[in-house]
Amino acid sequence: VAVVTTGPIHFYFDLASPYAYLASHRVDAIAARHGRTIDWRVFLVGAAFQTTGAKPLVHQGPKGDYSRHDWDRQARRMGIRFGLRDDFPMALLAPSRIYYWIKAQDAGKAVSYAKSVMSAYFADQQDLASIDIAAGLVTPLGLSSEEAAAAAQDPAWKQHLKTETDAAVARGAFGSPFLFVGGEPFWGNDKLDDLELWLAKGGW
Amino acid sequence: VAVVTTGPIHFYFDLASPYAYLASHRVDAIAARHGRTIDWRVFLVGAAFQTTGAKPLVHQGPKGDYSRHDWDRQARRMGIRFGLRDDFPMALLAPSRIYYWIKAQDAGKAVSYAKSVMSAYFADQQDLASIDIAAGLVTPLGLSSEEAAAAAQDPAWKQHLKTETDAAVARGAFGSPFLFVGGEPFWGNDKLDDLELWLAKGGW
Repeated sequence: VAVVTTGPIHFYFDLASPYAYLASHRVDAIAARHGRTIDWRVFLVGAAFQTTGAKPLVHQGPKGDYSRHDWDRQARRMGIRFGLRDDFPMALLAPSRIYYWIKAQDAGKAVSYAKSVMSAYFADQQDLASIDIAAGLVTPLGLSSEEAAAAAQDPAWKQHLKTETDAAVARGAFGSPFLFVGGEPFWGNDKLDDLELWLAKGGW
Repeated sequence: VAVVTTGPIHFYFDLASPYAYLASHRVDAIAARHGRTIDWRVFLVGAAFQTTGAKPLVHQGPKGDYSRHDWDRQARRMGIRFGLRDDFPMALLAPSRIYYWIKAQDAGKAVSYAKSVMSAYFADQQDLASIDIAAGLVTPLGLSSEEAAAAAQDPAWKQHLKTETDAAVARGAFGSPFLFVGGEPFWGNDKLDDLELWLAKGGW
């Protein structure tokens, strides 16, 4: 029987992942119900796909059709607006780098930024691959969009995102979202209820 | 909003699928709670993998490691004995053909047979690819193991299994287990709670 360790739950997610978007609406409340917090960790799931040979879901024939159906179905049940841009899926490099630039200053603001990025992307189908659009979303947080745009193109923040992604993949995060409660892994939005049971029981 | 149609829920499953084994312990009760029944439909998920380019989970690097961990974790929570043979995964042709030979006679006995096959395979690690072992499991059902062994090698039952598999794949069953409530698809053991909610709400 595994032991639930203390410390934050690690929530690895790709900003362009529909299942991560759905999960992002639930993880904080699940953690809070059990006296825990979430450490939000952006990564590029495309890098993880290289370790498994996986392709994006929408490129997997009938599995892609099912996924589109299931995303709509889950969003409808949760009362969340959801849609995909015609160019989906696309790696969202700029906001992923900006995320870590903000997190180094204020982790809470970084979470707010991630939520606003995913909402703009999935609820409003904005082009979050655009540096200008990604940088513009920092303004309501009291940050400089010029500095954010610079961070998105700064080799240091490019490397930071790569390091975070490599660490996630090395830990076994082969999909998005991927969560760890201590060392215990939970893959996918559909596993959040199991994760909560794990917290409630202290493992089994 | 989709409408839940009447009629049995279609439960497509591969006898060699760990997630189907886990789901097989729950589906009848879920259906019964909502006045429904389950039509148990064996198919060969390997044929479905050819449509998506998927490989068996255990051959997918870190996803395979996670799957093994998750199967053990789910089985432990459910109080079900679970283990894998060293030659896992292997297509279980003989019992899949025998399943339909029995179903043509008595659908209830076929379900009992499927349960006994999966229990022998996953709880006791018996070699269910063996015609003799697969045929022997019909004896407690009052059927002839000699006739079952003959059915497993009969071109007509080989074709029947192929036809059922092709129909499942054509309908979109790209993994195991895969369920349909009317036309509404639910993939995976982790989706059973959603399926039950769908039954309870009559769709959404």
